[in-house]
Amino acid sequence: MRHEGLKGFRDFYPPEMAARRAVVDSVESTARRYGFREIATPAIERQRLYTEKSGDEIVEELYAFTDKGGRDVALTPELTPTVARMVVEKGQEFSKPIKWVSTQPFWRYEQVQQGRFREFYQTNVDVFGSADPTADAEIIAFAADALTDLGLSADDFELRVSHRDILGGLLDAFDTDVDREAAIRAVDKSAKVETAEYHALLADAGLSPAQVDQFDELLATGELDELVAFGGTDVEAAVENLRAVLAAADDLGVNKYLDLSLRTARGLDYYTGVVFECFDATGEVGRAVFGGGRYDDLIESFGGPPTPAVGVAPGVMNSTLPLLLQRAGVFPTEAISTDYYVLQVGDTRPTAARVARDLRARGHVVETDLAGRGFGAQLSYADSINTETVVVVGEQDLANDEVTVKEMSSGDQTTAPVDAFPGDHERPTYEDFA
Amino acid sequence: MRHEGLKGFRDFYPPEMAARRAVVDSVESTARRYGFREIATPAIERQRLYTEKSGDEIVEELYAFTDKGGRDVALTPELTPTVARMVVEKGQEFSKPIKWVSTQPFWRYEQVQQGRFREFYQTNVDVFGSADPTADAEIIAFAADALTDLGLSADDFELRVSHRDILGGLLDAFDTDVDREAAIRAVDKSAKVETAEYHALLADAGLSPAQVDQFDELLATGELDELVAFGGTDVEAAVENLRAVLAAADDLGVNKYLDLSLRTARGLDYYTGVVFECFDATGEVGRAVFGGGRYDDLIESFGGPPTPAVGVAPGVMNSTLPLLLQRAGVFPTEAISTDYYVLQVGDTRPTAARVARDLRARGHVVETDLAGRGFGAQLSYADSINTETVVVVGEQDLANDEVTVKEMSSGDQTTAPVDAFPGDHERPTYEDFA
Repeated sequence: MRHEGLKGFRDFYPPEMAARRAVVDSVESTARRYGFREIATPAIERQRLYTEKSGDEIVEELYAFTDKGGRDVALTPELTPTVARMVVEKGQEFSKPIKWVSTQPFWRYEQVQQGRFREFYQTNVDVFGSADPTADAEIIAFAADALTDLGLSADDFELRVSHRDILGGLLDAFDTDVDREAAIRAVDKSAKVETAEYHALLADAGLSPAQVDQFDELLATGELDELVAFGGTDVEAAVENLRAVLAAADDLGVNKYLDLSLRTARGLDYYTGVVFECFDATGEVGRAVFGGGRYDDLIESFGGPPTPAVGVAPGVMNSTLPLLLQRAGVFPTEAISTDYYVLQVGDTRPTAARVARDLRARGHVVETDLAGRGFGAQLSYADSINTETVVVVGEQDLANDEVTVKEMSSGDQTTAPVDAFPGDHERPTYEDFA
Repeated sequence: MRHEGLKGFRDFYPPEMAARRAVVDSVESTARRYGFREIATPAIERQRLYTEKSGDEIVEELYAFTDKGGRDVALTPELTPTVARMVVEKGQEFSKPIKWVSTQPFWRYEQVQQGRFREFYQTNVDVFGSADPTADAEIIAFAADALTDLGLSADDFELRVSHRDILGGLLDAFDTDVDREAAIRAVDKSAKVETAEYHALLADAGLSPAQVDQFDELLATGELDELVAFGGTDVEAAVENLRAVLAAADDLGVNKYLDLSLRTARGLDYYTGVVFECFDATGEVGRAVFGGGRYDDLIESFGGPPTPAVGVAPGVMNSTLPLLLQRAGVFPTEAISTDYYVLQVGDTRPTAARVARDLRARGHVVETDLAGRGFGAQLSYADSINTETVVVVGEQDLANDEVTVKEMSSGDQTTAPVDAFPGDHERPTYEDFA
């Protein structure tokens, strides 16, 4: 019977995988240059790792089940709780700050739409053990560099920066009992829902209509001094921290990509300080491309020592980031390519196999006939895999101890001594023998 | 509260991940040189993809559950059914043979033991669309090259080669009604269970005690002509195919790693022709390291056109392969390393950040202070991440437009013009300025 893949899950075939791989490699390379070290983590965790700290939205979308041992488990919907668990378990073995990077899939049972799949890939980059603004700035600088390394410019994207404690401090300054987390979730939704719904969510969180308007105005101004005047010392400390992060980001040369935007809040409950989201500067890609921020309390809440942390997780492979790259015209054009096809004519397999083996030993991508095909069919296959050089190992040539070397781009061909292929040549081409 | 990872699932922290990454990169590099092209596949499939063709053992170990849309799904316990599904869906778009490679985790609810986890990683390598013995040989040659590229020699491992149709043909030649699949599964288990249990399994499959002895003797001899004499034309064809595969493997230079071993059968029901398993030649690693074989009927059984296929899946990361590499003393010794640490003393962050940025732009791994630490603490951290060169950006040096360049291996240091760091240097070192 015929089978289908699941809705919201993608198969990546080689041509498009080559482009996605180029994106992943580029983002990982940027992280590596910043000194982030690779880790690998399980795809399954106990459900309670998420039910405590991630917030209701993530929990509702969990791929959750009971395993054969009766454990309530879930496919990982995000990396942060896992790395927090790992820091609690063995963080004391590593000198601080701990800087980790990893790329893997995550799973959420969401509504499928353009750039949003139920299985999606992220490169997670985190710093543990530093509360210093330079750590926030490094995460932001990594994010900006990852995007510019992919070919994007300041005209293509903006990183909208905010601070959870500014939002929290303003909410606390209202003379009423506000559900801070609910109000911050409302702010996170403000760009995605109608104003009436946004205001209703703020009202649900405990703000009166007049307070909703005032809060909204405060967020809109972006005048930090005005916020301090309204919010008092808590907001003042948060504003000072935000300014220190922006100053450190300036030293790292990435301030031109940043926008102060207090309407940015991030949906996850565990964020504590600076938060930021990346958007398409043209607005064509409507949703956030990715986000990150500081989560200073999570590791302690998991039973570890107080360990400040900050991180970011660009989506790669099938997220909004490829959509942004495509919109900006910089999505990689990598295609399948092949250095050599060793074409066998007649009973020449021992020599053809030897040539292929020697070329592979020099690191080249080499294919040979696996189907007993004739000359034309082999040449056509060699063309279909974008072969650079075809080495024809034919009975007649071999009688003269020669092979034929064909440059596929020009169609030019010549003969070469079979012993010289590859012989002393690291990467023999038509030019070497013409 | 404190959380634990699940039994049978591993966290890979950076030091050991560096070594595992080296193994994965090496195996993937070998595959790439053979012209296998990367794909990426979902971690979840519908359960029925496995219940039909993979055999009872895999089905019993499935991480299976019902998703929020009411679909019966399972975490992928192996790749083959997924790639078969993908070939059915879009195989017609690709020139044949199709050659795919991918590395990802798989999940089976098994008894946890040394080298066997519930989450394990494989690099799957498959050829679709060729029934030719050269395709089997290429898969076997890839497997052997992957192992020798990792530093193993002919003394370290053996690839035990068998043929499903020899086993099947011998079973059919008995004058009784034998459950062929059950008998082949018994053969697959023969090395793992007591002889009595093995014989009982063969008896369950329909062989009389005398037939069990005779079958056992036939498998033990390894005299192919004797098998043909007993089994007739079906066995003769299978033996001829096996000999053709061995001849092609010989041309590829890998015959020295191969052993004919009819007790090798592979546990999966879908195999049809040549099958093989890799073992530690010293026997110290007791279980099979990995296996592969031909599965010519699977794609047609999934509703596709007749598409012969052959593949292999070395375990990487946490399987028996690392155990074999450790036993042979060739497990990678990769450790964390850092090209530059830019050490900031006093109020010099703008310059320190500029130096770090410029070095990163040249592709180097560069860390800086993220925690407002003093000279000694920074130097100690730089040492802990195996830094090659420390660049000290201090207030006094900067007053002279200089930085201090310290080679960590020798402790030698000198000054360099701040503008020359990196300036025209691609990779400035102490030697450049001493």
